[in-house]
Amino acid sequence: MVVSNKGVLFKAIPTGHPVIGEHFEVVDRTIDIENFNLEENELLLKNVYISLDPYMRERMREHYIESYIPPFHVGKIMVGDGTSVVIKSTHPQYHEGDIVAGFTGWEEYTHIKENDGDMDVTGRFCLNHAKDSSLSLTHHSFLLRVHGLTAYRGLINFGTPKKGETIYVSAAAGAIGHLVVQMAKIKGLHVIGSAGSDEKVDFLLNTLKIDAAFNYKKVDVNKALSKHCPDGIDIYYDNVGGETLDQVLKHCNRFARVIVCGMISQYNIRNQKEKYGIKNIEQVFMKSMSIIGFLVSDFWSVPNDNFGKDMEEWLDSGKLIYKEETTVGIENAPQAFLNMFAGKNLGKSVVKISDF
Amino acid sequence: MVVSNKGVLFKAIPTGHPVIGEHFEVVDRTIDIENFNLEENELLLKNVYISLDPYMRERMREHYIESYIPPFHVGKIMVGDGTSVVIKSTHPQYHEGDIVAGFTGWEEYTHIKENDGDMDVTGRFCLNHAKDSSLSLTHHSFLLRVHGLTAYRGLINFGTPKKGETIYVSAAAGAIGHLVVQMAKIKGLHVIGSAGSDEKVDFLLNTLKIDAAFNYKKVDVNKALSKHCPDGIDIYYDNVGGETLDQVLKHCNRFARVIVCGMISQYNIRNQKEKYGIKNIEQVFMKSMSIIGFLVSDFWSVPNDNFGKDMEEWLDSGKLIYKEETTVGIENAPQAFLNMFAGKNLGKSVVKISDF
Repeated sequence: MVVSNKGVLFKAIPTGHPVIGEHFEVVDRTIDIENFNLEENELLLKNVYISLDPYMRERMREHYIESYIPPFHVGKIMVGDGTSVVIKSTHPQYHEGDIVAGFTGWEEYTHIKENDGDMDVTGRFCLNHAKDSSLSLTHHSFLLRVHGLTAYRGLINFGTPKKGETIYVSAAAGAIGHLVVQMAKIKGLHVIGSAGSDEKVDFLLNTLKIDAAFNYKKVDVNKALSKHCPDGIDIYYDNVGGETLDQVLKHCNRFARVIVCGMISQYNIRNQKEKYGIKNIEQVFMKSMSIIGFLVSDFWSVPNDNFGKDMEEWLDSGKLIYKEETTVGIENAPQAFLNMFAGKNLGKSVVKISDF
Repeated sequence: MVVSNKGVLFKAIPTGHPVIGEHFEVVDRTIDIENFNLEENELLLKNVYISLDPYMRERMREHYIESYIPPFHVGKIMVGDGTSVVIKSTHPQYHEGDIVAGFTGWEEYTHIKENDGDMDVTGRFCLNHAKDSSLSLTHHSFLLRVHGLTAYRGLINFGTPKKGETIYVSAAAGAIGHLVVQMAKIKGLHVIGSAGSDEKVDFLLNTLKIDAAFNYKKVDVNKALSKHCPDGIDIYYDNVGGETLDQVLKHCNRFARVIVCGMISQYNIRNQKEKYGIKNIEQVFMKSMSIIGFLVSDFWSVPNDNFGKDMEEWLDSGKLIYKEETTVGIENAPQAFLNMFAGKNLGKSVVKISDF
């Protein structure tokens, strides 16, 4: 049974925004599933979803540059967090038909080996419980596993929100932001969000019902913060970095917490000279503030954690909704990836590769 | 009894480094102590010491600029933390001969009133215990009250040092830095310090016996950190901000703590355009780091605090020494203040105004 196995090849290292065809492109390939032989402790996965996340831009770099996540290899298929069905297995832990989450290829079928870096066979998380769930598969594979946890860890564990405080969230209609603003509302905060289109601002105000929202492309961030945060900012959940972060520091209150989840505004700037320099950093000691960075991978679990219980309650009661921007077909993944950096996604960007 | 009461007048707001004669200057005045009348709840103080601290530059600003500490008033005597003897009192809490610490004028005698901002009569801390102490008066008024506590709070309470970790301290021979490096050695850390003269580097290496020290004016900070911190930096105790902070971020390890005590490199830059912009801020989330700012005034006491006990033990055993740069005479205070920004002081800068 020879079937299509289209994939997205990483062709060359971009210096700015990646360009389709130049830095990554779809390649037509096939795979003979019936005659596909596995060595010991290997899997053949049929990929169902892949997650598109801003951090992946960091992987498109020269190998000599150290960073927190390994670089992609030029000439190989791109890698991302995905959800897959096991269609062949020689590993005792996984069986045909199992649903697994973990790093996989941007392709229709992925051969998972032993000792293969972040694609290693041991990095699979079993999602069989999703088969009998009233929630969608992506709720299980992304919201409850990674993105909800990222929002929760940042806000609850590091932000230590107190009822009545003011929080500002940038990229508030994005994958993490739209979850943070809802969690902050649940915790009784005054919630201000910004996003890059009127449609997103409408979503924030009328669907998520946060207290105030503005389109940062249309208004001056500094003035908008003065207007919408008259009592100052106690928590800034930063998804963008750059000039927005710099402006926010001036609006922060004493003992404010800046939670740095990501800095999407800076990811496509590889030239150090062009990076934005934060000039208001002295606000940090003048206001006894903290700037706290974290990677969710460091904090999959913490003691006395209520993440699972809280999410179940919030989803059941309808207090929290999970919004996705779904692109269908692996061949559309490169454009969807670029759309994410252009701020065109509402909620979490996923690519649906196949049915399961 | 008419005596001299020389003082330092704040004449005009500087835009860069203050200039003697233009922005502040010594004025000759007299005071008739015998016939000096106090209203109810007032004091007349004979000032013994004043403390020169970098934060004072922040007070030399326009009144419309908000900050963490009130601005000085043009045309009035400058104000600083000082140690004084009460020579007249109509306040029930203070008596003639008492030694008190708190905000006082840069002058020989200061009239302390009720409801007078940070010079208010209630802001006096009794130091009578210093009369019978084997430690000097400045140990009690500065080391044990403010500067030792600043070093301790930053390092111990916010830095959470663990034996074997590497700490880098900038301005390591300064008022706070020379205490931090010693405390870090006591806590079993690998201690690297930088300073702006060979004399200071010698003091760090041969008197304080830290592990490595360099003159940041003679070597490249980036290269020096690579050389002296081969295992990366776990704690950076920042007294300078600016380019040094930016470089340090690249050398930090995962979960590093940057403790921001001050940013002396930036205090004389009032023009926002000329301020240094921190470009490596994204290291904060890439390395799950925290940048923690604090003002010691927020944390005079904390629960389960060992500051007093630790300092007593460290001073008694000789594990910690307190170094001062003493300038004699209030007329020399302006130059001593400028010397501090030029990095000419070794240890804590104090001005001795009179004997007590």
